Amino acid sequence: MLIVPEREIANLMTREAAFDAVEKVFAAMASDDARNFPVVREAIGHEDALYGFKGGFDRAGLTLGLKAGGYWPHNLEKHELINHQSTVFLFDPDTGRAKAMVGGNLLTALRTAAASSVSIKHLAREDAKVIGMIGAGHQATFQLRAALEQRRFEKVIGWNYHPEMLPNIEKVATEAGLPFEAVDLPGMAEADVIITITSAFAPSLMADHVSPGTHIACMGTDTKGKQEVETALLGRATVFTDEVAQSISIGEAQHAIQDLSLRPEDIIQLGRVINGSHEGRTSDDEITLFDGTGVGLQDLAVAAAVVDLAVEKGISIEVDF
Amino acid sequence: MLIVPEREIANLMTREAAFDAVEKVFAAMASDDARNFPVVREAIGHEDALYGFKGGFDRAGLTLGLKAGGYWPHNLEKHELINHQSTVFLFDPDTGRAKAMVGGNLLTALRTAAASSVSIKHLAREDAKVIGMIGAGHQATFQLRAALEQRRFEKVIGWNYHPEMLPNIEKVATEAGLPFEAVDLPGMAEADVIITITSAFAPSLMADHVSPGTHIACMGTDTKGKQEVETALLGRATVFTDEVAQSISIGEAQHAIQDLSLRPEDIIQLGRVINGSHEGRTSDDEITLFDGTGVGLQDLAVAAAVVDLAVEKGISIEVDF
Repeated sequence: MLIVPEREIANLMTREAAFDAVEKVFAAMASDDARNFPVVREAIGHEDALYGFKGGFDRAGLTLGLKAGGYWPHNLEKHELINHQSTVFLFDPDTGRAKAMVGGNLLTALRTAAASSVSIKHLAREDAKVIGMIGAGHQATFQLRAALEQRRFEKVIGWNYHPEMLPNIEKVATEAGLPFEAVDLPGMAEADVIITITSAFAPSLMADHVSPGTHIACMGTDTKGKQEVETALLGRATVFTDEVAQSISIGEAQHAIQDLSLRPEDIIQLGRVINGSHEGRTSDDEITLFDGTGVGLQDLAVAAAVVDLAVEKGISIEVDF
Repeated sequence: MLIVPEREIANLMTREAAFDAVEKVFAAMASDDARNFPVVREAIGHEDALYGFKGGFDRAGLTLGLKAGGYWPHNLEKHELINHQSTVFLFDPDTGRAKAMVGGNLLTALRTAAASSVSIKHLAREDAKVIGMIGAGHQATFQLRAALEQRRFEKVIGWNYHPEMLPNIEKVATEAGLPFEAVDLPGMAEADVIITITSAFAPSLMADHVSPGTHIACMGTDTKGKQEVETALLGRATVFTDEVAQSISIGEAQHAIQDLSLRPEDIIQLGRVINGSHEGRTSDDEITLFDGTGVGLQDLAVAAAVVDLAVEKGISIEVDF
């Protein structure tokens, strides 16, 4: 079997490859060629860690396996390791034998960024000029970098609960040659595309902060109780997601479903837009919203892509297992 | 991280080490020091395979991880590989980083055999002389070998739906210097210990086939619908199990719970007998029955033991992951 350690991922994986892998597997999910398995996520009662497995099978891409790992909140202070730790294991779907083991930390950041980026490609207005960021942490930089490749943006605006973190995303804007402006939340009305990437448990972006025609990618909510935007915004928008079951249970849509701003049957799998079975945006005034919850198949797709790249470049470690 | 390939397991792992690991983790489960996570088991729609994950965390032994794999029914004919394929992955519970990868095929056979063997140690009469086997497949040979180490047995009797397979277990008896006799099902009344290890969907061993004082280990039923013994036998016996939740849902007890021969609160975790919080067998006439369903923590326990042995003998492969 093949092993691709975490330290090699940065040299191997590109935003383009992550984008292609995620776009393809979203389409496979929507055409029932790929399916996520039930998610296991457990508080283990040690080091305050959350640990679990996200598995799935993509029959189209013949990718089978899981991402295992979780969140160890004391890693950084205690061990100088990042708090999110994960590893992807791929299996041969023809035989069930272990096929590859791939470091999953950077891949998780890249596949999450790729998901909002895929949603922008398929749902944002072609003439989008201003991109707004709600959130300015480590993951926000990945989201912004990937998003900037999808439209000819002319300006980045940003808001964060802790404004002292805004230089993180300002730096990405500057590197891309774009002006950056810190705004208050009503200032988001200037944006044509908004990405929310926080770990908040109460909404910051309200429906009135968003102009007609905007595309919003809500990427932070992946757990029961988290919330980034007002439910009225989901009621007003056409809502897309990676997986409906996750969207209504642990995604941004959980709250809108509960207060009846939105019905589960109104939520559209983004993959349907990719494979042409849904038209996507239908007017320049429509607000589109992508609820990105993060599915195991995304992890498997980018891991399979990185294994191919590692083999191509002769970088993978081969173990006779 | 450390890698112990499947081919090394036979040289490293002993029945004794498997027994100790399983006995210890059963005790840890009963004292709430160890917990299995929800099981994922999916028909993937490719090669008729069943694939999934059994994970858990043993806080006492600091063992965290999962067994991944499943059943590929066409492996033998198509690829000359065994149909059950699994791999165990261990993680560092302090940091969430991948720690070891271990071939899981032989380990699964050994940990299943160890479970019935642990039940015999703690529940069979000390003076047990005759052991009866229901089932004579590959796994039955593992069960019998491990069981013979627990009491001074003087004779092995066996029944199998396909009698032409009985030489499999006769061979094990002969190797142990014991006489073997093929019997019909009523002939099982001679046995002091009975192990059932079939993949049947209808009972073969009836309550009337079993004498007072017998200990029965039901090891074959691990799926909804499977059944090896008549429910009246569970009604008559004191019933023990590895994990009550699995016993009543996918184990042998599922049918007795349904026809009200048994109540869930009557089922005792075997670990309680091991750690002394339940007295176990109380008389020479009592029928004891162990419903062995197979839990992820067993796999993690034997895998952790084999990693220790591999390190000790300098056999593991170290990969800078």
